Amino acid sequence: MDAALELLLDRGYDRFSVDEVAAKAGVAKTTLYRRWPTKDHLIVAVVARLQDSVPVEYSGDVRADLTRYLGEIAAGLNRMRQAGRPATSGDTSAGLVAEVAAAAARHADVGAAVQAMFHRRNALVLTLLERARESGELHADVEPEVVFDQLAGALYYRLLITGRPLDAAYIDRLVASVLRGASV
Amino acid sequence: MDAALELLLDRGYDRFSVDEVAAKAGVAKTTLYRRWPTKDHLIVAVVARLQDSVPVEYSGDVRADLTRYLGEIAAGLNRMRQAGRPATSGDTSAGLVAEVAAAAARHADVGAAVQAMFHRRNALVLTLLERARESGELHADVEPEVVFDQLAGALYYRLLITGRPLDAAYIDRLVASVLRGASV
Repeated sequence: MDAALELLLDRGYDRFSVDEVAAKAGVAKTTLYRRWPTKDHLIVAVVARLQDSVPVEYSGDVRADLTRYLGEIAAGLNRMRQAGRPATSGDTSAGLVAEVAAAAARHADVGAAVQAMFHRRNALVLTLLERARESGELHADVEPEVVFDQLAGALYYRLLITGRPLDAAYIDRLVASVLRGASV
Repeated sequence: MDAALELLLDRGYDRFSVDEVAAKAGVAKTTLYRRWPTKDHLIVAVVARLQDSVPVEYSGDVRADLTRYLGEIAAGLNRMRQAGRPATSGDTSAGLVAEVAAAAARHADVGAAVQAMFHRRNALVLTLLERARESGELHADVEPEVVFDQLAGALYYRLLITGRPLDAAYIDRLVASVLRGASV
């Protein structure tokens, strides 16, 4: 998995290959293909492992927790946006994340793996929001799923659709806006 | 453009071709290729035309305006999700929208066209939010861009990442959550 992540970030989606991962890791190709039948399956596994490296726990300060968590998500997305590109490219397109979304749309089993990965990870953040609701930091009738869609959705929308930057200043504005609400 | 839209929704991304659009519309292929060098360029033009068919104007009731506008966006996204699939497929993957996002990530000129299309359309909604702010419906310091990211982002996130449905009930919950805010 370490070899796969390193090659993925270095090569980008197009030039990433399972064969090269096998060579780099010193294992038989068949060992990899048995577990991950295509490069898309292997990429989903790498992304899942990246996600699992980010801890999610309610500290008693939901603003701080969300800011930290979204900062980690944005850092991961920015690394994937940059995958396979020179650091100076200035390319703001979505790169790897868009390719994974397209692969998920094309192949039902990749799609199921992507949805399962996000379902499992996002459940942790939904629990965090429930704890914040129970503690009285959030409205008693707040809907964690909707609140999380507003937060994560804004990041992915900027990455995949409008190409706008994901940085700490934006995350602060986003968390403030979501927590406070727009209407008078 | 009518021929292109009809074929796109019928065939889906993979089986959509500029040649077939030319045949259906009764124009020379070269006429189309001169204006839209690849099928991705033509698809972006079709989607832009679909977007332009949705009016955006502030009525004095921002909740009603956002609910109506997001309902139209969701209807368009659901049509594109379904493109090329039998109505009974039950496939919840993103389909066409994910393919366009991937094409935008792969080809700089397609990416620029997609970003320009969203920039132009979203500016109308940002103006609507500014009017609502001036009228006193929204906080004086509300940031239209961030509010819009939360709304549109949630829809695209569900479409492209989690595969969750986009229906009227969800849009009501989303608009209510964005306008009110999560924190006590």
